[in-house]
Amino acid sequence: MNSRRDFLKTASLSTMGGMFFGASSFGSLSGLRSDETPLQTTKPGRMNLSWKPYDLALRHVFTLAGSSRTSTQGIQVEIELDGVVGYGEASMPPYLGESKASVIEFLSRVDLSTFKSPFELEDILNYVDGITENNTAAKASIDIALHDLVGKLIGQPWHKIWGLDKEKAPSTMFTIGIDTPEVVKTKTQEASHFNILKVKLGRNDKSDREMIESVRAVSNQPIAVDANQGWKDKFYALDMVEWLHEQGVVLVEQPMSKKQHDDIAWITERSSLPIMADESLQRLSDVPKLHGIFSGVNIKLMKCTGMREAWKILNLARALQMKVMVGCMTETSCAISAAAQLSPAVDWADLDGNLLIANDIYDGVKVVDGKLQLNDRPGLGIVPLNKN
Amino acid sequence: MNSRRDFLKTASLSTMGGMFFGASSFGSLSGLRSDETPLQTTKPGRMNLSWKPYDLALRHVFTLAGSSRTSTQGIQVEIELDGVVGYGEASMPPYLGESKASVIEFLSRVDLSTFKSPFELEDILNYVDGITENNTAAKASIDIALHDLVGKLIGQPWHKIWGLDKEKAPSTMFTIGIDTPEVVKTKTQEASHFNILKVKLGRNDKSDREMIESVRAVSNQPIAVDANQGWKDKFYALDMVEWLHEQGVVLVEQPMSKKQHDDIAWITERSSLPIMADESLQRLSDVPKLHGIFSGVNIKLMKCTGMREAWKILNLARALQMKVMVGCMTETSCAISAAAQLSPAVDWADLDGNLLIANDIYDGVKVVDGKLQLNDRPGLGIVPLNKN
Repeated sequence: MNSRRDFLKTASLSTMGGMFFGASSFGSLSGLRSDETPLQTTKPGRMNLSWKPYDLALRHVFTLAGSSRTSTQGIQVEIELDGVVGYGEASMPPYLGESKASVIEFLSRVDLSTFKSPFELEDILNYVDGITENNTAAKASIDIALHDLVGKLIGQPWHKIWGLDKEKAPSTMFTIGIDTPEVVKTKTQEASHFNILKVKLGRNDKSDREMIESVRAVSNQPIAVDANQGWKDKFYALDMVEWLHEQGVVLVEQPMSKKQHDDIAWITERSSLPIMADESLQRLSDVPKLHGIFSGVNIKLMKCTGMREAWKILNLARALQMKVMVGCMTETSCAISAAAQLSPAVDWADLDGNLLIANDIYDGVKVVDGKLQLNDRPGLGIVPLNKN
Repeated sequence: MNSRRDFLKTASLSTMGGMFFGASSFGSLSGLRSDETPLQTTKPGRMNLSWKPYDLALRHVFTLAGSSRTSTQGIQVEIELDGVVGYGEASMPPYLGESKASVIEFLSRVDLSTFKSPFELEDILNYVDGITENNTAAKASIDIALHDLVGKLIGQPWHKIWGLDKEKAPSTMFTIGIDTPEVVKTKTQEASHFNILKVKLGRNDKSDREMIESVRAVSNQPIAVDANQGWKDKFYALDMVEWLHEQGVVLVEQPMSKKQHDDIAWITERSSLPIMADESLQRLSDVPKLHGIFSGVNIKLMKCTGMREAWKILNLARALQMKVMVGCMTETSCAISAAAQLSPAVDWADLDGNLLIANDIYDGVKVVDGKLQLNDRPGLGIVPLNKN
């Protein structure tokens, strides 16, 4: 079990990716802490929330339909209770509308002092959810840290607490971003040790087919396609789905805009492939509305406020006979390991976010022979990396 | 933590309610065990399932619309792993279609030897559920024993594992059965320390109103009404609901047959009171079908195969904005304490089954000032009563 002191030692490594702000910028409800007195604000039996900006450096320029970037804003969070520390994280890709500033403002408003115990997850997370309407990544950072803390207090990993067999964890997809045919071929060859690829489409022109043809020129791996709402016409989209089916694609995410659910339902009814909701799914309350429109849902912690709601979404989707996948943003092994806890219960996992960054700060879930490998450590199963 | 040896000591008490069959009738996969060698069949790291018939002696004759009885058939179950014992129970009121014989036959078919760990609840319970189509009480007995075992191995009660605050546990209803006005008045007066009463109606004639008037002659406590599918006409049923509303009734369960969902939806739409599904709800897969027909659901472990599915039903109903109550059969404090673990998350609890029997064999959840009082013991929080 890792003490708060260990975390701060890690957190103060200014060499880590060159972006750590140093421990003196570690915010908390009690004001800023200095590196010299890390336990100053700790009161016995009380949870202490603190946080630190930490941007994620992408290994490669990341291109979606409509945007590209080289880093993702992030905030690392800790919740400490009597020397036991739970780690959490918020990752803020720009299209979700959150930023370091908005997450820090949210976290500044969180007061855990009225709760007797981190075990009161239902009440604490309802309170956190009620602070603002949105800020799902900020809420997820609290949820993840609390789950890590509770798991450590229990002494069990969450996959075990949830009653899952870690041997059932699936392979993770590895994402091939939109790029030139030659770059796509090279990236695909580099990803030959993965058992399933994820290919980003949705440019709504012949380049979509070229992307797939480039992958297929060098690989026979199964492919999951994410159209990111890119296709504009249901007939075109269905034609694409059927063509993709012939190319060995196994599912298509979000073929059209979340504002075009009638068209998506039309596609799903006719499609040979499962049609999965990504942008159309945010919170638990969305799931019943997606029943009959999509074949399944892609759960991401940063969209749905964290592990507790993710587990509820998974069980609700199953009760509605819907497929389930678990996805991610670019995240460290903190949030990736959190999401991986429910992976033994999903149909597909797309948890490569930690593999896409150059400055991970945790050891956690691994990928072995393409398959997610959960460990038996308590909570999220993560340990801060000490690069000293 | 209770060892298997402690249980057998308890189990062998032939004085207990006069119905215990003696330890030599304790069945298991490995055949019958003798009292002298209780650990004979135990192999390290392997779960050992055993069971014992144990009928529940009712304190009073129990009358529903259409039947009355003085005892309920039951089976007590144990799952032991390396000296740690989880307790479970099947209770078989006749209208559910199970009996001691059918439960024993089911349990004889359960082989836990292929599972590495009781933590694999999802896989184990899916396997158990797949053995037969029905046998929900038999399945619940396995589920409850596994939850007790896993909670003990973790060292935490399930309300904590589920993230609930035990201080939020509600009052329990206390059931007033169908009887003569004088008996009803006496029983109601005896129940003055409860904060809410449950009154069984559904005889479809003026005796329903007389029941309520008898209670109201001596008590102003809130009342929950269970019509047990007894009313035959939707106009009559809605009139009754509105009259009951005026009498301080707070909810009505199952006003009409589960075959008359159109009529029930019509009542729910017009009713001043929440209309709760009881007979209409059995399994998780029923919940989406009840949305729009009932205001909420009454979850009972013996109907839904146990704690894991109960927790899923609760969360699914919440996601559909439905009310939730948790109910019971006549059960010992084993199954009652199991159901009580989720009570902090429900709107109403009807967990008086252990109070209605004369031969309880566990110390577990208590009723204090009418309110359910959960304890901090691991698992279900129960300890076998040793009456020696």
